[in-house]
Formats: sequence, structure tokens, C-alpha cells
Amino acid sequence: MPSYKAPLEDVGFLLDDVFQFDRYNNLPGFADASPDVREAILGEAAKLAEQVLQPLNRSGDMEGCVRHEDGSVTTPKGFKEAFKQVTEGGWLGLSTPTEYGGQGLPVTLSQTVNEFQCSANMAFSMYGGLTMGATAALLVHGKPEQKSVFLPKMVSGEWTGTMNLTEPHCGTDLGLLRTKAAKQGDGSYKISGTKIFISAGEHDLADNIIHLVLARIEGAPAGIKGVSLFVVPKVLVNKDGSLGERNGVSCGSIEHKMGIHANSTCVMNYDNATGWLIGEENKGMQGMFVMMNEARLGVAVQGLAQSEVAYQNAVAYAKDRLQGRSLTGPKAPDKPADPIIVHPDVRRTLLTIRAFNEAARAMVVWTALKSDVAHRSEDAKERQAADDHMGLMTPVLKGVLTDGGFANAVSAQQMFGGHGYIAEWGMEQFVRDARIAMIYEGANGIQALDLVGRKLPRDGGRAAMTFFAEVDAFAKEHGADEAMKPFIAPLSNALGHLQQGTMWLMNNAMMKPDNAGAGATDYMQLFGLTAFAYMWAKMAKVAQDKIAASGATPYLTTKLVTGRFFMERMLPETTVHLARIQTGAATMMELPAEAF
Amino acid sequence: MPSYKAPLEDVGFLLDDVFQFDRYNNLPGFADASPDVREAILGEAAKLAEQVLQPLNRSGDMEGCVRHEDGSVTTPKGFKEAFKQVTEGGWLGLSTPTEYGGQGLPVTLSQTVNEFQCSANMAFSMYGGLTMGATAALLVHGKPEQKSVFLPKMVSGEWTGTMNLTEPHCGTDLGLLRTKAAKQGDGSYKISGTKIFISAGEHDLADNIIHLVLARIEGAPAGIKGVSLFVVPKVLVNKDGSLGERNGVSCGSIEHKMGIHANSTCVMNYDNATGWLIGEENKGMQGMFVMMNEARLGVAVQGLAQSEVAYQNAVAYAKDRLQGRSLTGPKAPDKPADPIIVHPDVRRTLLTIRAFNEAARAMVVWTALKSDVAHRSEDAKERQAADDHMGLMTPVLKGVLTDGGFANAVSAQQMFGGHGYIAEWGMEQFVRDARIAMIYEGANGIQALDLVGRKLPRDGGRAAMTFFAEVDAFAKEHGADEAMKPFIAPLSNALGHLQQGTMWLMNNAMMKPDNAGAGATDYMQLFGLTAFAYMWAKMAKVAQDKIAASGATPYLTTKLVTGRFFMERMLPETTVHLARIQTGAATMMELPAEAF
Repeated sequence: MPSYKAPLEDVGFLLDDVFQFDRYNNLPGFADASPDVREAILGEAAKLAEQVLQPLNRSGDMEGCVRHEDGSVTTPKGFKEAFKQVTEGGWLGLSTPTEYGGQGLPVTLSQTVNEFQCSANMAFSMYGGLTMGATAALLVHGKPEQKSVFLPKMVSGEWTGTMNLTEPHCGTDLGLLRTKAAKQGDGSYKISGTKIFISAGEHDLADNIIHLVLARIEGAPAGIKGVSLFVVPKVLVNKDGSLGERNGVSCGSIEHKMGIHANSTCVMNYDNATGWLIGEENKGMQGMFVMMNEARLGVAVQGLAQSEVAYQNAVAYAKDRLQGRSLTGPKAPDKPADPIIVHPDVRRTLLTIRAFNEAARAMVVWTALKSDVAHRSEDAKERQAADDHMGLMTPVLKGVLTDGGFANAVSAQQMFGGHGYIAEWGMEQFVRDARIAMIYEGANGIQALDLVGRKLPRDGGRAAMTFFAEVDAFAKEHGADEAMKPFIAPLSNALGHLQQGTMWLMNNAMMKPDNAGAGATDYMQLFGLTAFAYMWAKMAKVAQDKIAASGATPYLTTKLVTGRFFMERMLPETTVHLARIQTGAATMMELPAEAF
Repeated sequence: MPSYKAPLEDVGFLLDDVFQFDRYNNLPGFADASPDVREAILGEAAKLAEQVLQPLNRSGDMEGCVRHEDGSVTTPKGFKEAFKQVTEGGWLGLSTPTEYGGQGLPVTLSQTVNEFQCSANMAFSMYGGLTMGATAALLVHGKPEQKSVFLPKMVSGEWTGTMNLTEPHCGTDLGLLRTKAAKQGDGSYKISGTKIFISAGEHDLADNIIHLVLARIEGAPAGIKGVSLFVVPKVLVNKDGSLGERNGVSCGSIEHKMGIHANSTCVMNYDNATGWLIGEENKGMQGMFVMMNEARLGVAVQGLAQSEVAYQNAVAYAKDRLQGRSLTGPKAPDKPADPIIVHPDVRRTLLTIRAFNEAARAMVVWTALKSDVAHRSEDAKERQAADDHMGLMTPVLKGVLTDGGFANAVSAQQMFGGHGYIAEWGMEQFVRDARIAMIYEGANGIQALDLVGRKLPRDGGRAAMTFFAEVDAFAKEHGADEAMKPFIAPLSNALGHLQQGTMWLMNNAMMKPDNAGAGATDYMQLFGLTAFAYMWAKMAKVAQDKIAASGATPYLTTKLVTGRFFMERMLPETTVHLARIQTGAATMMELPAEAF
């Protein structure tokens, strides 16, 4: 049976030492999260994940969700009780405003808690995760009365939320959507249509489910400019806040899918369901984008989380499994064979995952802090810079962390040989669960296009230039430091590749946009590798300083070795990504569609 | 629902044009496979795969195998009838000697048929595939009476075969195995022990199952030098060839696993089962190696096969799915959106898979021809050269084709967006099925070690030197040909990287074997890429000659574009593999096991 321990030491290093959380104490919520409060919160979050959620992961996968004839859906055994513990612990409202019953703490903390919960039980964590995404959209675009009716119950977790975008014929291209909204005399709308792939669309964990639904108002323009966002509760809410009649929305079926079996993925039928407009008519995508950015960072964390739990279990197996002997002679001569962790190829695999995880976690903390600054700072310039960072890094994080998270789950599974393929060991579930993160909230190819087509050129490339300058300044500052050489030289080299790739796109994709499409995925990976290298260089510097100040610890020594491994073995891939970008689109566009 | 068409045109190009099958007409069996016979056989094989096996793939996955209380196992609906069609068509004996009822045709043909069957239904094809592997081991190492009792029935498919290596505590390291064999007065042995992960260990497709079992004879040395191979039929065979009593072997349980649900993966309990020694005492690995080499090539083909069928379905979807518009303006203005095949990132994905598949298929045909030469030529030198090739290329094929086959199935699934994650579309099954090929018959890390540790240094590096010289000669021969420049320059560059990697291992791994282990996987991938590049250069030359002789066809034009795509976009990875090899083992061996 797989197990999980929350990476508290690594999180502490990032929050306390690398990103110096306490520097942000001028922002609302940060001062409340003093070091001892952080330790207490994260310690409790770890316990919840390890002791309550993780034990339900395998059983939830095997049991799955069941839809009954009346359209109701039962979640796996234990989920109801666990969800109650999550909501009663206030975990869903950790970083939502106190005004609606939240604790107002930084998103940096709630994303860390999110990592723990996703590692422990990804399918379970989605019920709360989607609720937080819907909450975020209502907070920004909801009307005051919508906020007061829905938010307190969603923050407490008494009610959950969903996002309804996809229809059978449209996912990426939401301009094609057909779900209709007809305006009623009382200002409400009647919503009719079919939505698919609705995660947590129906379940038995909450008294009500608040659906955010994209639909087209009768007479609205065709395409994306005629799409509006609506709030459609499963059960209508009376004026006094009590629950009234069932609304005209129901779960038509649940999908049989590759993984996240314990999350109900629903076909939702809207049949003259009553809904209320969020934001303005025909500007539905604005509200959806708030939700999607929130969700994309959350999905990135899912990639990291599956990679982390897969790594932990692969390490345990590699230390335990006796098979063969070290190429340099027996290392456990008293045993019938050596543990497989003596083999370089096993260590190569494990360090590749570990180096990814620690850089990815740093990226998440860094970006979550920017999110907090973007939402909480009183300084408009600071807010803008943080927002720039968020816009630029969100597609990188979503694409790179979920691609890598899946690949790492596969590598970790490989450590187990045949046992990795057997359900009982739990490794194949990590692979199946991790797979969805590459697809939903915008498939990774779309993230790459978002990066090169929108985020990179936006405001004359301001966000990217700021990032390049920051990395360059760091490299210059520490370039003369002998101990930092193994980190700085490769970082500068990677930055050079990223800048060359950027320049190539600027010179070649304006006139021929297919060149941007052809290089998009490689550019996203190149960007991610460079950002990871920056994270590693920062972490190495802090680790070296700590060692100089108060001596080496196993954690700090391992950090430095893992960082060198990243620089030596993983970062060289930037060369290939650059070469591919510079190849352009010509060859791939040469063939007619029939030739494929 | 997924579909499948056997790639007959591509196979014809390889057999007829690239490898000039008819040049081998001096070898037994080849002259019988004249062009029209080949066409008829492959046409029938295609029909069987497309019309009989493929329709059972999804249903077989959903239904799986069921073990009953008495230890019997039922395969999914339709499998019995389909297996009857396969056996009655003589497909299992296509390339086994006529002496035992086979057709004596080249392995080159039976591996092609294997590809079709694996694409159509991988789980189904394993029942026959394992039978052919067991047949191969008996052919080489069986005693005459064993051959006459078992082979005719196995060639006909009335009886099937298995290989029993793995035990709960040992897979890679078979020296640890504990299954015991006690010699009896009549020359037979009593076999007792537990074997796990036994594919096709028990089922309802045949009257008898012939298990080949590794066990340790009482008093034999410890380790791999005390391991012997036995034949243990499920039902004992009377002197007259009729079936007698049940033997002491039974299926204890079947595994719940990630994929290949329709193949029964059994825990087999041997309880004083009667078996007979194959080959000599304590030399069981020799017989097993015959079976494993056969099986490894077969597993490599599974990787290719899943990649091919996943590609075909992704192409169909990419042409059909309307979503968004081309970056260069609408391509289907009469439709609500363009088919997604207009997007460079979609084409990049599809061409990556296609370029892999066509090179991989060429590698398989090339190596299968060598297998035929190794077994059928009367010229000892020719046999040795062919055997060298087989030894060198088998781990490369197994590792590279299954790693790539899985990665491609994942990429093809990604084309479908959310639909790819839903079982109904069949794409996630290709991913789950393809995953096992990276693990069984020696996990790919073991293939890489086999390559660098055994196959590369064997006979002073003769096999590798021969391959390098062949590629180099080809590059020199066509280096001045202007039309071949896009192929020859990258090929020479890749060969240079492979030679540098080889040299580095020679200079650095003799004294420090961990350097070989640290670079093994990258070396295997580097080798595979270079061999692929050679295949592409050969195919390009033949395609260009054919175009010059009789004009362009869509097939030949596409071949050349796909080849250029490979050279431009995929081959540059050799740089990174070389860089990693040259990094050595130091960093990854630095940490104590506890640090992971």
C-alpha cells in the first residue's frame, strides 16, 4: 500500500529561507501567519492529508462514484466523513476573505495545503478545489447579493461549486457553445443545454452545488463575444437563505474514465434551469478567466503533488527491494542482494523526479506569493508587476508541472518493475490520476499557445523582460562566487537559450504565426527549465549561506547535490528545445491533411 | 470507437523496396514467400486484425478475465472464437518449421503479422505470442521426445505456452529464485513453488497449457548458476498423445492491473507438479534466453503497434474535430471552425509519432531479416554477423520502441482533449496497454544495462563497430548527393555523437562501472535515435529513387517530408543524451541512500 508524508521541511525552507515569507508582513493576512502559526497550520494540514485523505485514495479509486437512477451520485465510502473534517477544519476558506467566513490567510499557504491534499488524494481534493475556484470567480465578478447568498456557504464547504464550460462539440473553442439563456421578467434567466466533463457536478458531500455556467443569451452575438456567465444552484435558495425547490439541472450520466475515479465527472443537463447573470452580458469569459487562472495554478500543483507522492513511494521501494548487486561490488553483503537504490540508473530516475519536485514547489510558492501581492498590495506598481508574473507563469506552471508530473509518476512506477503495473501497489493509480492534469483547464498545447501568443507579447513583452532581467541580475550578482559556479554558469546558458528562442519568435512569428504554433510547446518547456534553473540557483545560494552560518544538515547537503544534478542532467535539454523552435513550421505544414 | 487499418503500403515499401526481401531467396522459406504470396498473407492478416481482433479490443478491456473458484479462468466474450480463427488460419505456425506443422516462412513475415495483431488487440495477441516464445525455446533446447509431444500441438495452437520466471521476491535477479525441483526415479522432476505475473497462465482458449518454468534442482548451487528450465504441462500427456490427468499446477489468483485486462496475468502455484528438464541441469538460463530474445523483439513490436493504432485514431480525430481557427486564417470557412489538424502543434505531435513509427517498423523488419539470416543461412560468417546484429539491436529495440510507443500513445491521447481521458474513445486503453511493454521481458533500465554492459563490449565491440561502419559507409556513399543532404548531414552528426558516447564509456566505465550504469539509458536512446536516422536515410534514398524512376506518389512524398521532420525535430536529442552520458555517475552516487 502506498504511503505519504507531507514535505514540511522543504516547504519550511522555501517559505522561511528562500522566499522570506515574513518580508510580506505589510500585506493583509501575512502577519497573522507568523512562523509558529504557519507551522501549526501546515502541521495540521499534513496530518489531515496523511491520516484522513491518503487512506481513502486507493479505496476511492477502486470503488469510484455511482450514479443512481434518480440522477443522484454517491461518492466512495469515507468521503463524506472526510469532507466533513475538511470543511469543519475551515480548510476551504483558508485564504478567502474573513468577510465571507474565510480566514484571509495568504494563498501561498492554501496552495501548499492544496499540494498536501492532492498528493494524498487527488480525486477527493477536487471537490474542495473546484469550490474554491468558483468562490474566486464570484468574489471578483459576483453581484453583492450573489456574494452574500452563496459565498459564506461555499467558503464553509456546506455547498460546493463547479465550472461548466465544455459541451460535446466544444472544449478549447468555447465560442461554439450552444447552451442557451433566456431572460425572464424577474431578471433571472432560464438555462438550457448540455455540459460535459463537469467535475464534481453531482455528489453527496454537500447540501447544494453552485454551478457556474457559460451560456449564450438569446440574440447574443455568435462566437466568444456572445458568451455570458451564470450562477445556477442545484437547489434554489429561498429569500431567507434556506433551501427551496430543486432547480432544472441534473446529472445525466457519469463518465467512465482513466483515473480520478473517486471524482464524479458528470454530463450535466440544464433544462430551463433558473440562473443569474454574473458580471455583464456577453462578458462571461472575464469571470471564467478568474476561475481558470486560479484553477490552472491548482492543476499545476496537482502535477507536482502526484510527482511527489510517486517519488516518495518509489524511494521506499528502492531502499527495500533487494535485487542484483551493485556494479562496484556488494553493498549489503549480509543480504541475498543489494537494495536497488545502489544502481545508478535507479538514482538517476529518483533524482530526476526529486530535482523536478523541489524546483516545481519553489515555482509554486514564488507564484503564489505573487498572487498574494497582486491581490493584497496597496502599491499599484507592485500589483502590476505581480500580475505580470502571474499571467506569464500560469501557463508555464500548468503545462510544465503537469507534463513533468505525469512523466515522473510513470518513472516512479517503472522503479517497481511488474509490481508497478499491479493496482495493489498504487503506483499505476498515480499515473492514471496525474494524466488528467495535462488535459483539463486547457490542454497543455493550449497553455503553450497562450504563452507564446498572448502572455509573451502582452504589453510589449514587459513580463518576460522583467523575468529575464531578474535572472540575469541574480547571475551577475553571484557570478564571481566560486561555490555558486556550478549553478550560475548553466543558469546563464539556459537564460541565453530562452532569450534566443524569444528573439527567434519575435523575428519569425509576427509575419508567420504558424512559426509560433510550431515552437510553442518547446518554448513553454524551455521557459520552464530556465525558471527551474533560477529556482535551483536561488535555493543553492540560500542553502550555502545556511551551511556557512550554522553548518551542514542532511537536508541542505541533499539540496545542493540535487541542484547540481538538475544543472548537469536536466538543464541541457534547453539546447534541443531551442533547436526545435528555430526549425520553424515549414516542414510540418508542408503536407495536406489527407497525407497524415 | 477506435478503428485500425493495417499499414500494408508501408510494409510493402520496406519489404519490397528498402530491404529487398527477394534478395534472400537463397534462404529456406523465402522463395515460398514470393511477392504475390506475401501480399496474400499480409492481406489476410490485415483482415483478421481489422475485422476479428480489433472489434474485441475495447470489450475485452472492459470485461477482463475472470478466475473462478476452481482456479479456471474465463477470457472475455468472443476471445475463444477469435483464437480458433487464429489457430485454424495457421497464424501461430507461420514461421515455425514445417516438421512440426508450421509453414516455415520467414520470421520477417510473422513479426509483421504480430504488429497487425498487437495494434488490433494487444491483450489477445499475447496468448499466441507467448506460445510462439515457448515454441522457440523448445525448438532450440528441447529433447527430441519433448519436441514431438509438445511442438505440433503448440504450433497449431491447440495448446498454448507460457514462461514462468518471476517470483514475488525476484524478477530481474532470477538467481534469487526459490521454486524447487526434485528429481524422480523416472527422470522427471517434482516442481514446487510460486510464480507471479504469468501472462496467459490460465485461460479457456486451449486444451492444454505448456508452462516453461525456471526452478532450482535440490542440491544445485545458489544463484543463477543453479537454475534449470522445465516443461510442465497443465494437463499431463499420455504416451499416445492424449490428455491424461491434471498436473499439480494451478492459478491461485489473477492480478488486477493497469491494462491488458483481457490477458490473464496469473499467480501460478506449483505443488509437486511433474516437469521435465529442458536442456541441461543448472543451465536453465540458456533456454530462457532464446525465449527472451524472441519475446523482446515481440515486445518491441507491441510498442510500435500501440503507437501505430494510437496514431491512426489521433489522425482521424484531428481531421474530424472542429475547434478554433488556423493562426493564418480560416481553412474551412464554410464550417463553424477548422479541423484541428490545421494547427502546427497538432501536426508536430502527429508527425513525431509517425516519424517514430515508420523508423521503428523499418528497424523491426531489418532486425527480423537478420533473425532469419541468423537461423537459416548456410554461411557461418553471415550467420555470425546477423547474430551480432540481433544481440546488439534487441535491447535497443525493446527499450526504445516501448518507451517511445508509450510516449506516443500518451501524445495521441492528448489530441483528444478531455475525450482522450474517457474510456469510450479507446485512447486511454492504448496508453494503459502500452505501459506494460516498458516493464516486462526485462524492464527498460535492464535493457539499457544489457546494452552497455554486455552487448556493446562483447567480442571487442565487433557488433557495434560493424553497425558504425555500415552507417558511415552509407553516409559516405550518398554524401555528395544533393537531394540526400537533409538526411546525410544529420545522420553523420548523430553517428558522431554515438561514437563519442561509446568512446566515453570505453574510457570511463571500465574502471568505474557506475559510469556505465549512469549513462546506460541515455546511451540506449542515443543508439536508437542513430539507428532510426539510418533507417530514415535509407528510406529517403529509396523513395527518391522511386520518384525519379516512376514519379511521385502521395505515399512517397509524405515519406520524404516525415523523414525531414525526423531529422530536424527529433534527431537533435542526440546532443542531450551525449551530454548526459559524459556527465558520469559522480553526482548521483554522492548521496547516501537515506538522503533520498
